[in-house]
Amino acid sequence: MDLLKYIKLKKKKVEEKLDVYLPSQKRRPESIHQAMRYAVFSGGKRIRPIMSIAVFEALTNEDEKVYPVACGMELLHNYTLIHDDLPAMDNDDYRRGKPSCHKKFNEAVAILAGDALLTEGLRLFTYVEDSEVVKKLISYVTSKIGSLGVGGGQVVDIENACIEYEEDNLNEKLKKTEYINTHKTGALIEAAFVSGAIVAEANEDNIEKIEKYGYFTGYLFQIVDDILDEDGYFELMGRKKSIQKAKNLLLKAEAQLNKIKGKKDILVQIPRYIYNRINS
Amino acid sequence: MDLLKYIKLKKKKVEEKLDVYLPSQKRRPESIHQAMRYAVFSGGKRIRPIMSIAVFEALTNEDEKVYPVACGMELLHNYTLIHDDLPAMDNDDYRRGKPSCHKKFNEAVAILAGDALLTEGLRLFTYVEDSEVVKKLISYVTSKIGSLGVGGGQVVDIENACIEYEEDNLNEKLKKTEYINTHKTGALIEAAFVSGAIVAEANEDNIEKIEKYGYFTGYLFQIVDDILDEDGYFELMGRKKSIQKAKNLLLKAEAQLNKIKGKKDILVQIPRYIYNRINS
Repeated sequence: MDLLKYIKLKKKKVEEKLDVYLPSQKRRPESIHQAMRYAVFSGGKRIRPIMSIAVFEALTNEDEKVYPVACGMELLHNYTLIHDDLPAMDNDDYRRGKPSCHKKFNEAVAILAGDALLTEGLRLFTYVEDSEVVKKLISYVTSKIGSLGVGGGQVVDIENACIEYEEDNLNEKLKKTEYINTHKTGALIEAAFVSGAIVAEANEDNIEKIEKYGYFTGYLFQIVDDILDEDGYFELMGRKKSIQKAKNLLLKAEAQLNKIKGKKDILVQIPRYIYNRINS
Repeated sequence: MDLLKYIKLKKKKVEEKLDVYLPSQKRRPESIHQAMRYAVFSGGKRIRPIMSIAVFEALTNEDEKVYPVACGMELLHNYTLIHDDLPAMDNDDYRRGKPSCHKKFNEAVAILAGDALLTEGLRLFTYVEDSEVVKKLISYVTSKIGSLGVGGGQVVDIENACIEYEEDNLNEKLKKTEYINTHKTGALIEAAFVSGAIVAEANEDNIEKIEKYGYFTGYLFQIVDDILDEDGYFELMGRKKSIQKAKNLLLKAEAQLNKIKGKKDILVQIPRYIYNRINS
């Protein structure tokens, strides 16, 4: 199946499930539930849950089991967006063309809605019946989103922005940019892919390959973003080297995928699609 | 054993374990790890982890198994404190006589350190070997700390503070105060007790009784706080009725405990000790 058709199909289903999983906005206290739903239903592409679903479907013939996990990943993603947008962080008044959560509501409610989406995202993983899978999932995903993962990436990004490139050392700058790219964005994408493999009860060897594929794809995702926004890696290394780097990451992701058996037609298209955004 | 001696003994052990579980402050990014440790090691009483340990030891003869869970509860408690102190929330410059986390570091690092303590607190639960226990723990605790628990209580508290008691209806005010007391503070205390019972693999009937005992004890804890601070319930109902309410909650907690078999000498002392703070 064509990736865009697959995305459209799965996006609809993910959004139906999210609507079921999230507390109604009439539930007390209304403001936090309104804020959670406002953030989640303001038009995301649902890339991360689709990554979980694609890996799951590549490695197993089962169907529904992956949805709480996929939706959990989407809640975790939205938690990071709400907190990143706060005045103390990136101070973004808009997100996807609409007022960001703290502008639509207020800072207190936005912080608490983010906290609740983090909590609820991890809670959705406990909806998987097999407790061994639940334990493995939560252990893995929390290690990827905490202070040594996404949270760490955001800290370095914020502090980097404060420093305003005082350092002259290009190597040092590159190391920081690489850290931010692989942690702030990359770690959650990696976790999205791997959690699909964990729910599919893939063996350790396949999980490791999916993790590498996810690492390269997540890194690629961020490099392409840097190229399109002309910042980060692009700003330091220029267009030619950035495209080389992206190409290199694409080949590495594909190489990992070649080592895995399964119905890989969707997984093959994902890094390729991300890479092609450069020329879109 | 006398409760104060027990607390002293367990506090030491909890702090040794916390030191092992938390990433070193030399770990990159240093600022977030410093902030996490600053918040956790700035002199808490460790009441919540001790509640988990006391229930666990009352219901089983095992020893070490409860510590990751008890320490997880302490990290969750500290996450709520860091976020509650933020300028957008209670705007407290001091916590336990020291600069609060966002004053010592900055708002961005404080928000992210809180997020990371929430993540890490839940991650510690996965250190328990039995995956059924892990699943039950995380399902239960996340339901208590999310938007329908601690987070919800904090939202109502903040919004209540904004309204500045515009409403004249005493009944409405009381309902709000009750909601805040049982959610913002009570829910985490309840979760601390119940998580001890879950790790002890208590049966559903005992877990339910411990939950009620925890509910009444948590509520008592907050009413006593209101009496000592002369606000909340005390402000609305006065000293005499507040003490009556506290006494009533104490008796209810004790009644639940009477229905449970086990080594209850420490558990019996906890609500009694909280109640006696009124005259301290």
